[in-house]
Amino acid sequence: MKHVEFMARALELARYGAGHTSPNPMVGAVIVKHNRIIGEGYHPRFGQKHAEVMAIEQAHEAVEGAEMYCNLEPCSHTIPGKKTPPCTERLVREKIRKLYLSTLDPNPYVNGNGVAAIRAAGIEVETGLLAQEALELNEAYFKFIQTRLPFVNLKMALTLDGRIAAAGGDSRWISDEAARERVHRLRHEYDAVLIGANTLRIDNPRLTVRPLDQPIPAARQPWRIILAGNGDLPLHSEVFRDQFREKTLVFTAARNDNHRPAVPGNADVRVIPLKSNAGGRPDILAALKYSGEMGISSVLVEGGSRIFTEFISRGLFDKITAFIAPLILGRGIEAVGDLGIERMSGAIRLQRSEIETINDQVLLRGYRNIKETFGSLTESVACLQESSKSWAELALSNR
Amino acid sequence: MKHVEFMARALELARYGAGHTSPNPMVGAVIVKHNRIIGEGYHPRFGQKHAEVMAIEQAHEAVEGAEMYCNLEPCSHTIPGKKTPPCTERLVREKIRKLYLSTLDPNPYVNGNGVAAIRAAGIEVETGLLAQEALELNEAYFKFIQTRLPFVNLKMALTLDGRIAAAGGDSRWISDEAARERVHRLRHEYDAVLIGANTLRIDNPRLTVRPLDQPIPAARQPWRIILAGNGDLPLHSEVFRDQFREKTLVFTAARNDNHRPAVPGNADVRVIPLKSNAGGRPDILAALKYSGEMGISSVLVEGGSRIFTEFISRGLFDKITAFIAPLILGRGIEAVGDLGIERMSGAIRLQRSEIETINDQVLLRGYRNIKETFGSLTESVACLQESSKSWAELALSNR
Repeated sequence: MKHVEFMARALELARYGAGHTSPNPMVGAVIVKHNRIIGEGYHPRFGQKHAEVMAIEQAHEAVEGAEMYCNLEPCSHTIPGKKTPPCTERLVREKIRKLYLSTLDPNPYVNGNGVAAIRAAGIEVETGLLAQEALELNEAYFKFIQTRLPFVNLKMALTLDGRIAAAGGDSRWISDEAARERVHRLRHEYDAVLIGANTLRIDNPRLTVRPLDQPIPAARQPWRIILAGNGDLPLHSEVFRDQFREKTLVFTAARNDNHRPAVPGNADVRVIPLKSNAGGRPDILAALKYSGEMGISSVLVEGGSRIFTEFISRGLFDKITAFIAPLILGRGIEAVGDLGIERMSGAIRLQRSEIETINDQVLLRGYRNIKETFGSLTESVACLQESSKSWAELALSNR
Repeated sequence: MKHVEFMARALELARYGAGHTSPNPMVGAVIVKHNRIIGEGYHPRFGQKHAEVMAIEQAHEAVEGAEMYCNLEPCSHTIPGKKTPPCTERLVREKIRKLYLSTLDPNPYVNGNGVAAIRAAGIEVETGLLAQEALELNEAYFKFIQTRLPFVNLKMALTLDGRIAAAGGDSRWISDEAARERVHRLRHEYDAVLIGANTLRIDNPRLTVRPLDQPIPAARQPWRIILAGNGDLPLHSEVFRDQFREKTLVFTAARNDNHRPAVPGNADVRVIPLKSNAGGRPDILAALKYSGEMGISSVLVEGGSRIFTEFISRGLFDKITAFIAPLILGRGIEAVGDLGIERMSGAIRLQRSEIETINDQVLLRGYRNIKETFGSLTESVACLQESSKSWAELALSNR
């Protein structure tokens, strides 16, 4: 087996933690001796064992002198509230010979300190293996740890002609069952789902994660964030009444006039007044900052049109995930309204976009600006990849 | 090699005639003996040799007792103007043992007569092999031969949010060079390209086929059809002045009032008055009928929005070919306007849609209604495929 295959396995293991590790990243580790895997591990859940330690403990041979493949730099710090001892110490104690990493950990407590500690103990370290894949896997973590703002993904279901609903608001169904199942998987991996008051009014969605392979505990249901508009909220909405209502968060605009739109009086639902924008609605940057302070590291924005337009025009999104169905609707509700772009050359081009098919639908996703999402990692990864041609070649030959 | 592989080779050969055979279909033929190909042929150009005959003449062994694979039923008729003798007679004379076909030829002069003649001479015939692929290959031929109306393909370049241009009309460029190269290949395979007066005014396109591998003679440039609106046409447009202007066709509306919009007075450009629709513009069904009578068997419609909306709302298209770029524009010109559809469940779902990627763009194409496009073939193909499970299985295992 080749380097990239071992690291690909580590990334595969890491994904087993999807939806359970936040605000920690997903991490997988593989221990290799004489070109064979002798131990595997992953970080299963926030507060539980780290991947490196699980791989060591589950190894069926002595790990002394072995190589370890891990998608993220090992932790090297001890701070109040941190639930696990530093992985670097364990790697040194177990006499791992060489460590292959995809990327550093931009967490300011780590960010190169892990690698330095390992190297100081005489363990070889190489970074950059499957770095792009590792960046995408933990995109929310990398954004949040560097900015304290949640990673924002705009999820849209579109007709071929760019509509998200019929003129009356009816959007059932643009996507088929398989695509909607994908949306549930996405929600499961996000800390919060956000919609505007109009979407709440028209669709009255639950915004919960349906059981995938096993029932989802309340703790792993995403927050439901409602951005209130100028009008009254429909107080009988599911999100204010169902068994997960303590995970509903309403942002309203603090106003100077005497107008007080109706908001839930239910003690379980949090209602947070924020400064208002020019339209008298809550400011979305303030909403993201507040969410980040609550520890919400990722937000899946599910519409509607006005909400998408505001996130896009203010540059406050990281990614767009669009499901496009082979439907022609004609007149209807447009996905995105006025952005003040007058020429086609001024349109926003998604970066590193990827295309997948789900039955007869397209799933297209791409980033707004990889530098703003990945911060310091963007450059170090680009730089690493330039200087390690052999790995780039390996990666290509294995695609 | 397997049956499907021989037929796949016949289809591949058939495509060598792309852009040159109209109004004839593209046909390829492969002759097989002892499971080896001993002869190959295709119909290179209207008026020239048929595929079956070329394969026989190019065979490097005696063809007696061999099998032939051909995507279309062989011709069996002699009528004034037909440039070649019946292929059926040649197959009988050469003592071909067995003939594998994809589909019958719905041309009323053939349509089962070819198969009957072959069988009467004791040659075995099986039909249905790679029938779906064969239908798509000659989609324009099958539509035109059964309805005398051209096959209509709406070609759109869209942003992810469903815009075909910025608000001022600027559409350069939504697609990249590779996608535009595909459009040139498409144009090369169509008898005509059609646009509305607005698109003529804003883009002043040439609508010609750029040299692909070799210069395209004037005879193989597509007709440029302009659907005039209520206003004056821009008389200095490229299509009225360039060296292919004798292949420009303007449809105008015959009007009762005294309003006479300016149209080209150039003797090379044909201006055809047609009955007008409610908006005072030429009726598009009349335009398609007139085109069909001229022998135009396929029309690539390139916009703009009003033209797309009219073809779609009247159900007068066969296929949509959409290039979707990962661009967000916001306000701009919508691909499709009001179709009178009020609910998402009433949206038009493209049939047998296929998705391809071109760099970071999606190419999505699908049919409006395969029964209306393929007529009698739709049912016979469906029926054949149900009754020949083994072939269906073969086809699957070879994908």
